[in-house]
Amino acid sequence: MGIAIAVGVQVMAGRLLGLGVGPGDPELLTLKALRLLKAAPVIAFPCLGDSPSFARAIVSDYLSGDQREIAINVPLGGHGGTDAAYTSAAAEIATALDGGDDVAVLCEGDAFLYGSFMYLWSRLSDRYGCEIVPGVSSLLAGPARLARPLAAGNDIVTILPAPLDDAVLAARLADADSAVIMKLGRHLPRIHRLLARLGLEGRSHYIERATLPNEICQPLNALGPAPAPYFSMIVVGRREDAPR
Amino acid sequence: MGIAIAVGVQVMAGRLLGLGVGPGDPELLTLKALRLLKAAPVIAFPCLGDSPSFARAIVSDYLSGDQREIAINVPLGGHGGTDAAYTSAAAEIATALDGGDDVAVLCEGDAFLYGSFMYLWSRLSDRYGCEIVPGVSSLLAGPARLARPLAAGNDIVTILPAPLDDAVLAARLADADSAVIMKLGRHLPRIHRLLARLGLEGRSHYIERATLPNEICQPLNALGPAPAPYFSMIVVGRREDAPR
Repeated sequence: MGIAIAVGVQVMAGRLLGLGVGPGDPELLTLKALRLLKAAPVIAFPCLGDSPSFARAIVSDYLSGDQREIAINVPLGGHGGTDAAYTSAAAEIATALDGGDDVAVLCEGDAFLYGSFMYLWSRLSDRYGCEIVPGVSSLLAGPARLARPLAAGNDIVTILPAPLDDAVLAARLADADSAVIMKLGRHLPRIHRLLARLGLEGRSHYIERATLPNEICQPLNALGPAPAPYFSMIVVGRREDAPR
Repeated sequence: MGIAIAVGVQVMAGRLLGLGVGPGDPELLTLKALRLLKAAPVIAFPCLGDSPSFARAIVSDYLSGDQREIAINVPLGGHGGTDAAYTSAAAEIATALDGGDDVAVLCEGDAFLYGSFMYLWSRLSDRYGCEIVPGVSSLLAGPARLARPLAAGNDIVTILPAPLDDAVLAARLADADSAVIMKLGRHLPRIHRLLARLGLEGRSHYIERATLPNEICQPLNALGPAPAPYFSMIVVGRREDAPR
């Protein structure tokens, strides 16, 4: 009888890296995100609909051209299609990780604050080593660009997604020291009316594309009734009489 | 009659820069904060009591040694002394700005989210050009290090300072999708009891000195009843059944 000998090379799996790339200005990447981005043989990034990837655009000057790129094509609207897109992207990323390559997933702002990275992370983090590099969220870039402090002393800050119902938003805004309303998009006219009705318009500022060359910053009461891009927000600032 | 001629050199005032230097890991500085830090002839940073400055320690490897340093000596406790400390520091910074030098104020985390920079900003921003560079707050670094997403979909996030009364905290925690309790320090044992009473202990994780070599991360129910350093927080994570 012969002896069967299995000959093989054990490949150590790569790591899944969630890199926060900041709100838009490429200089708002952290040193750590830049280092890991440059070292990763594979990068992945979301593309909404047929638009070019915003996350990839932020870091484009830092890419050597030698990295393999995985575009995660997220359809606009339609939750079923979204799930399928992340499942398909997770499978493609898993293949790269199994081959021993680290995969850097580019995340607008911060990976764990409303980041789509979570949908990959929930599919892959039980099987692969992961590292999350926190980034500068627009939550913080907005107040910086508006030159309006977000919280001092014992202020409570409430972060509210605009798609929520008026009743939910009104209840939370009623007792907010300061609040940030994110993901405005088509909800802006409704949110604007709500803030006016609650007497909060005077404390509110609007900002879109924070830190980009085409950034717009203005008091909410100077804003016309137009919809906004997805990457826009309203900061309901601290009360003037708030304790310091 | 002679003509009096005034000869003088008009000096353009320097700019006040509020640089978020991140939660502790020096690699979590942004490229922009690093560039402005290196170019500033004067840096300023808070020192609590007699302790060395944490903000300065974060960036110490990036300092040339040629910069003038202004230490803002903030007394522990005692609001009157604190006000006087910022007033005195603001005057010293104003002198540097008047001389044409930019002054980079180092801010742990982000300058406008509970940053002491605000106390300088409120004293100087009406007279000098300012720029705020947003930074990675521990608000975002904590969840990254805990490997626990902070918010997805339409989650509402509530940021709560630990010194608030139990009744206030309990009301806000009752309907929070996720919450971050900051500035724990001596309040930790009380907050721990409160979260246990509210049935939230199982969803809560504790982290101190996030991203530093001596970082501690653990589930809240594994934590003993000791006080915590000021730079510690509890993340009350998303409900397991939260919609994605």
